[in-house]
Amino acid sequence: MSRFERLFNPRGVAIVGATEDTIRAGGQALEAITSHGYSGNIFPVNPNYDTLMKLRCYKSLADIDQTCDVAVIAIPAKHVPGIIEQCGAKGIPFAVVLGGGFREVGADGMENEKRMLAAAKKGGVRIIGPNCLGLVNIHQNIYTGFGSITKPPQLKPGPVSAVIQSGGFGNSVVIQTGGARVGFRYVVASGNESDIQAPELIDAFVDDPETRVILAYLEGVADGRALMAAARRALAAGKPVIILKAGNTTQGLKAAASHTANLTSSYDVFRAAFRQCGIIEVQDTHEAGDYAQCFASGRLAKGRNVVVMGGSGGSAVGFSDAADEMGLKLVPLSDKTMAVLRECLPNVASLENPVDYAAGFISDKNMPRYQRALDAVLADPDVHQVGMLFATTTGRTMFNGVQGVVEAMKHTDKPILAFCSIPYEAGREGFDLIAEHGIPMQPSPRRVAYAMGKLADYYDVLQQRERICNPPQPKPRALPPLPAGAATLDEAESKNVLRAFGVPVTRDVLVAPGAAVPASVKFPVAVKIASRDIAHKSDIGGVRLNVPDTTQLEKAMSEVLANAKRAVPTANIAGTIVAEMITDGLETIVGVVNDACFGPVVAFGLGGILAETIRDVTYRVAPFDKIEALSMIREIRGAKLFDGVRGQPARDVDALANLLVAVSDMAWLMRERVAEMDINPVLVRLAGKGVIAADALVVLK
Amino acid sequence: MSRFERLFNPRGVAIVGATEDTIRAGGQALEAITSHGYSGNIFPVNPNYDTLMKLRCYKSLADIDQTCDVAVIAIPAKHVPGIIEQCGAKGIPFAVVLGGGFREVGADGMENEKRMLAAAKKGGVRIIGPNCLGLVNIHQNIYTGFGSITKPPQLKPGPVSAVIQSGGFGNSVVIQTGGARVGFRYVVASGNESDIQAPELIDAFVDDPETRVILAYLEGVADGRALMAAARRALAAGKPVIILKAGNTTQGLKAAASHTANLTSSYDVFRAAFRQCGIIEVQDTHEAGDYAQCFASGRLAKGRNVVVMGGSGGSAVGFSDAADEMGLKLVPLSDKTMAVLRECLPNVASLENPVDYAAGFISDKNMPRYQRALDAVLADPDVHQVGMLFATTTGRTMFNGVQGVVEAMKHTDKPILAFCSIPYEAGREGFDLIAEHGIPMQPSPRRVAYAMGKLADYYDVLQQRERICNPPQPKPRALPPLPAGAATLDEAESKNVLRAFGVPVTRDVLVAPGAAVPASVKFPVAVKIASRDIAHKSDIGGVRLNVPDTTQLEKAMSEVLANAKRAVPTANIAGTIVAEMITDGLETIVGVVNDACFGPVVAFGLGGILAETIRDVTYRVAPFDKIEALSMIREIRGAKLFDGVRGQPARDVDALANLLVAVSDMAWLMRERVAEMDINPVLVRLAGKGVIAADALVVLK
Repeated sequence: MSRFERLFNPRGVAIVGATEDTIRAGGQALEAITSHGYSGNIFPVNPNYDTLMKLRCYKSLADIDQTCDVAVIAIPAKHVPGIIEQCGAKGIPFAVVLGGGFREVGADGMENEKRMLAAAKKGGVRIIGPNCLGLVNIHQNIYTGFGSITKPPQLKPGPVSAVIQSGGFGNSVVIQTGGARVGFRYVVASGNESDIQAPELIDAFVDDPETRVILAYLEGVADGRALMAAARRALAAGKPVIILKAGNTTQGLKAAASHTANLTSSYDVFRAAFRQCGIIEVQDTHEAGDYAQCFASGRLAKGRNVVVMGGSGGSAVGFSDAADEMGLKLVPLSDKTMAVLRECLPNVASLENPVDYAAGFISDKNMPRYQRALDAVLADPDVHQVGMLFATTTGRTMFNGVQGVVEAMKHTDKPILAFCSIPYEAGREGFDLIAEHGIPMQPSPRRVAYAMGKLADYYDVLQQRERICNPPQPKPRALPPLPAGAATLDEAESKNVLRAFGVPVTRDVLVAPGAAVPASVKFPVAVKIASRDIAHKSDIGGVRLNVPDTTQLEKAMSEVLANAKRAVPTANIAGTIVAEMITDGLETIVGVVNDACFGPVVAFGLGGILAETIRDVTYRVAPFDKIEALSMIREIRGAKLFDGVRGQPARDVDALANLLVAVSDMAWLMRERVAEMDINPVLVRLAGKGVIAADALVVLK
Repeated sequence: MSRFERLFNPRGVAIVGATEDTIRAGGQALEAITSHGYSGNIFPVNPNYDTLMKLRCYKSLADIDQTCDVAVIAIPAKHVPGIIEQCGAKGIPFAVVLGGGFREVGADGMENEKRMLAAAKKGGVRIIGPNCLGLVNIHQNIYTGFGSITKPPQLKPGPVSAVIQSGGFGNSVVIQTGGARVGFRYVVASGNESDIQAPELIDAFVDDPETRVILAYLEGVADGRALMAAARRALAAGKPVIILKAGNTTQGLKAAASHTANLTSSYDVFRAAFRQCGIIEVQDTHEAGDYAQCFASGRLAKGRNVVVMGGSGGSAVGFSDAADEMGLKLVPLSDKTMAVLRECLPNVASLENPVDYAAGFISDKNMPRYQRALDAVLADPDVHQVGMLFATTTGRTMFNGVQGVVEAMKHTDKPILAFCSIPYEAGREGFDLIAEHGIPMQPSPRRVAYAMGKLADYYDVLQQRERICNPPQPKPRALPPLPAGAATLDEAESKNVLRAFGVPVTRDVLVAPGAAVPASVKFPVAVKIASRDIAHKSDIGGVRLNVPDTTQLEKAMSEVLANAKRAVPTANIAGTIVAEMITDGLETIVGVVNDACFGPVVAFGLGGILAETIRDVTYRVAPFDKIEALSMIREIRGAKLFDGVRGQPARDVDALANLLVAVSDMAWLMRERVAEMDINPVLVRLAGKGVIAADALVVLK
C-alpha cells in the first residue's frame, strides 16, 4: 500500500468553496464528487450555505464530524494557507488545491505558496497542486478535482495510472489513450507540483498492485534524479513507464516557462536519463495510446524477430519500412511452419514472411485453415511477435480475423498486434472483440512496427534490469587539492584532477617562467601556456605544436609567454607546459556539465570541425557503468570510425569506455566543486594502445 | 477535360465475368456498379446467364447494343487478352482488369501481359490494372471495381483525387483521409500499372476542374521523370500533390518487390525528385489526412509566422516544440492586436503568443469578446496562420470555440487550424460544424504544427512555381571525344570530360611512360597513375602526394609506374599525371549515378572520413539550376562548414553551385554514355577563390 493510499482512496472528501454554480471550480468539484457514484462521505464546506446539492454544508472544516481524508480546495490563493492550517488541525492528511495565484504569477503568488507550504509542513498535510485539475480514481469513481478530467469522455477502468503536469494537454494524452481502448486506474493532474511531485506519484503507482503501466506527461522536473529513481523502481517491479516530455526546443522551452514554473533542462539530458532508467519515451499523443495498449496487454516480446500476416501486400511494405527503422527483423519461417502454411493457405498466397494469405481468405469456411496457419506461425520458436495486417477488411471478414487472434492467444503468450484502418462502424463486432480481449490495434502498419519495436526495446531493458536498477555508487575517495571558491584551473591543475581518477594524460612538464628547458624532453613536443586566467589558449597564440628541437622549444616558450602577457596583461601565469605530441589518436571530446535538474552529466562526442558542426554528441547522467559508456560510444553518428573504416585498424573502445566511467565517477564525487569540465581532445589510439587526454579545463564552483 | 473523361465518367459499363456470387470478383463488381446509384447503362456479360440481378445479361461484349465506355474484366488472366481484343472491336475505350496472374506471377503471367498489351494497342484500348481493385467516381456514384474500395465506409464527395498502387493499403490511406472529414472525387487503385500508370493518372487529375488536391500511394514508378512532369503540371495548376511512398528500406524494398513488380530506386532519389517538383511527402497514413484537410480547405499560409490561442498552456508547449522543428515562428503580436487582447481576454490570460485565454473563457456570455480577440489576431499583418488549441474542451464550450472560427473565416483567408482531443461523442455539434466548414482539425498540437509547416512549405514552393515548373533544358553541345562501348576513363580523360563542361580541374601534365619530367612544374606536386584499368589508384600505391622537387618527382613517377605494373600487370598505362597540390580547399565529393527510375542523378556531399561514414550526402535529378544547387549545399548536415566555423573564412559556395549545375548539365547531355561519375575531391576554396576538381573518374556504358 502506498503512502498516498488515502489520497487515492479517501474515506471522506471535503469540498472547500463548494457551490451549486458549476461555472465555478467549487461547483464543478462538488458536482464531480457527487455525480460519479463515490461511496464515501462528502462534506461541502461554505459558510454561506446550510445545504448544497441536498447535502449538509459545513461552515468550516472544523465542523466536519466524520472521517475526512482529502480536502479539495476551491477558494482564492490568499485564503489557501489558512485552510491548509485547518486541514492540519483537523487531521486531514491530503489537500487538492485547484486554483492558481501561486508562484506562476510572480512575487505575490510566491508569498502565498510559501505560507501554504509552511502550513502544510506544520500540520503534516500533503498537497496536490496548486493550479491543477486534481485527481481521479477510475476504479472507485472518486473524482477529487474539476474541469476536463471530471467530464466526458468517461475512461474505463484498467491498469494504467497517469500523472500529467498540464491538465488540458496531459488530459488530451489520457483521453486519446483511453480512446485506444486502454483502461485507467488513477489520473493525477499535478499542476504546479509545489509539494507532491511527479516522481513521488510514479513511486506511489509502483506500490499500487493494480497499476501495471505508468504514463506521464511532463514539462520539467525539479529533481531529475528522483524521477530516475522512481522509474528504476518501476522497472524493478516490471511496470513500464511511458513519458511524453514537452518543452524541448527553444520555442517550446519558452512556452513551458510561461506555463508552469517547472525547471527545465536540455532535452538531450532528459533523453539520456530516460534511456538510463528504461523509460519509454513518446513524442506525440497517439504513440502513448499505441504503446499503452501493448504494455497493458501484459504480453512482452522476447526478441526482435517479427512476422506479419495479412491480405494486403502494400501494408506489409509499409510495415517492413518501419520495421527496418526499429531494428526489427522479418525472420524467415521454419520448414515446419512453411509446411503448415503451404497446406492451409490458398495457392495465390505468398508464404514467405511477410505472409500474404490473399484478400478474402478469412471467410467462415476457411476459419480452420486460417487458425492452423496463425497458430503455426506463433508456435515457430524463432518468432517473437506477430502482426496481423487486416487493413481495409470489414464486417464479418474482419471479425473472423480477430476471432482467430483471440483463439491463438489461448495457445501463446507472444504479442499479437493488429493493423486495421476502418472506422468502428464498419466492423463493430471485430472492434468489440479487440476491446474485450485487449488486442493491441493500430491504424497503420508503421504504427504496428513502432509498437513492436518498443516491446522489443523494453525486453532488452528487462534483460538488463539488475544493472539498470542498481547504478554504480563510486566509493568516496580523497579528492585532489583544489583552490577554494569559484576558479578556473589551468591545464596542469586540470590534468592533476584527471590523474587522481586514473584518467591517462599526456606526459607534460610544467616549466616556470624563466626556468630552463627540461633535459628529458622527447621531441617533437607541444608548448602551451599554463594560466588559470587563460581558458582558451589557442585563441591568444598560447599554443605551439610540433616543436622539433631544443632551439625551437626555447623560442616557442618565450613566444607563448609573450603572447599570453600581451593578450591578458593581468593574467597569473604558472608557466609553460611542454607536452608530448600524440599523432596516432582519433580525436574525441569528453565533457562534464552540471544540469539544473539532473546534476552532473557527462557528454561525449567526436572531435574535429565537422563533428562539432553537426553536434555529434551524446550524454549520460553520472555516475554510470562501462556498459553505459560503451553504449554512448556506439550511439554517436560517427561510431563506425572506432571500428576502423577504409581499412584503418579498430580503435581502443575499451580504454575509451574506462575513461568515460572514470570521468563519470569524478563528475559525481566532485559534484560539489566541479561546475564544468572539458577534456578536448581525448585521443583514442589503436585497439590495445589506450586513450590519452591531451588537454583539459576544469571550472570550479 | 482529360483524356480519361470516359474512364471516370462512363456512359455505360460492362462487367465481364458478372455473376450473382459476391464472393467472386465478378459478383462484387456487378454489385458495386448496381448498388451505388450509377445512372448510366450496366451490361453484365456472361454466356451462362440471361439475366443477372434483374439486368439483361449479355453473352459477349459484341452483343451490347448501347454505348459502353468501360469494361470491368473479372475473368482468369489467360482469357483477358481475348476480351481486350473484343473491347477494341466494339470500340470500348477503357478496360479495368481486376484479376492477377500477370507479370507478378512470373513467366506465364508475363506472356498473358504481353498478349493483353498487344491487343490493347491494336484496338486502342487503355487499361487500368491488372491485379487491381479498379476505380471509383464518388461524385457520380460510379464504382467500376471490386473489394474494399467498393465497400463501407462510404467516402463523401470532395476535391481530392487519389491513385493508389496497392488496393488494401492505399485504400487504408484513402479511408483514413476520409475519416479526417476529407471528401474525394476519383479513387483509382491502379494495381500492376501495365498500361495506365500513376503519372498519367495524376496528369488526368490536373485536367479535372473539380479535383483540387491529388493524393497518391506509391511503391515505385516505371518512369520517374513522368511523375515529376505530372507533379509540375499540378503545381502550375496550383493543385497540391501529396504522396506516401513505401518500399524505402532494405526490408521494405524486398516486400515491395514480392508485392508489385514496380521498379524501385533509392529513397534518397525519390525524396530529391519530390522536392524538385513540389510534391508533399508523407510517411504515415494519418499525415495524409492531416495535410489533405488543409489543402482541401483552399487556404494557403503566406509565410511561416504562426499564432496559437487556447485555454491549454500545455498544448501550446507541445505545439511550440513541433513549430521549432518545422521552422515556424511564434511571432510577437502587434501593439494594436495586444491592445484588443488586453481588452477582451480575462485578467488571468497570457496575452503573448502563445495566447492562453484560460480554460472556461469561451462561454456563451464571452462570445463577443472571444470573437473580437480572434479576429484581431487574424487581422494582424505579421500573422500568416492561426492554431486554435481546444484540447479537451467539450460540448457547448467546444461548439462556441468552433463557432468563433467559422465567423472569423468570413473575415480572413488565412488558414485557421484546430487541435481537439475529444472523441466525436463529446462534442457532436462542434465536430459537425468543423466538418461543415472544412476546418482542418488535428488530434494533437504537434500535428497542427506539422500541418502548418506543410502549408508554409507549399507557399514557399508556390513562390518558386515559375522556376520549378520550368526546369533548365541544357543546350546540346559537342561532346568530348569518347571511346566506344563500356569503358572506364583514366583520370586525364575523365578530367577532359569535366573541362568540356567548364568544370575547373587541377593543372595536370600527363607524362608518358619513359618521357622526361616536364620543365614547367610548380612544386609541390602530386603524382598519380593514369590508366583506364586502375580506377582506385591509392589502393595500389598509384598516388604520391606533396612531392617537393625534381629528384623526388622522378623517383615518385617510377615508383607509381612500378606499383601499377605490379598490381595490374595487364593494365594499359597512359602514363603518370603530375598535378598541382591544392592545400586550401574544403574537401567535397560530387557524383553522378544513373537511377533505374529517374535516370541521371547528381550526388553531393562533404569529403573526409567522418562525412563518408555518416553519409552526409544529398541528391538531385539532373539537370537542375543554380538555386537547386545552392539548396543541395545548404541541406547537408555539415553545411555550416561552408560559412566558415571557428573563425575560418567562408567558402566559395557560389562557385560550388556553378560546378554542380555544370555537372548536372553533363550528366543529362551525356546520359546515353555516362554510367557513373565520381569527382573526389572537389576542393572548395575561400569565397571568391573558386573550386577545383582534383580527381575524377568517368565510367561509360
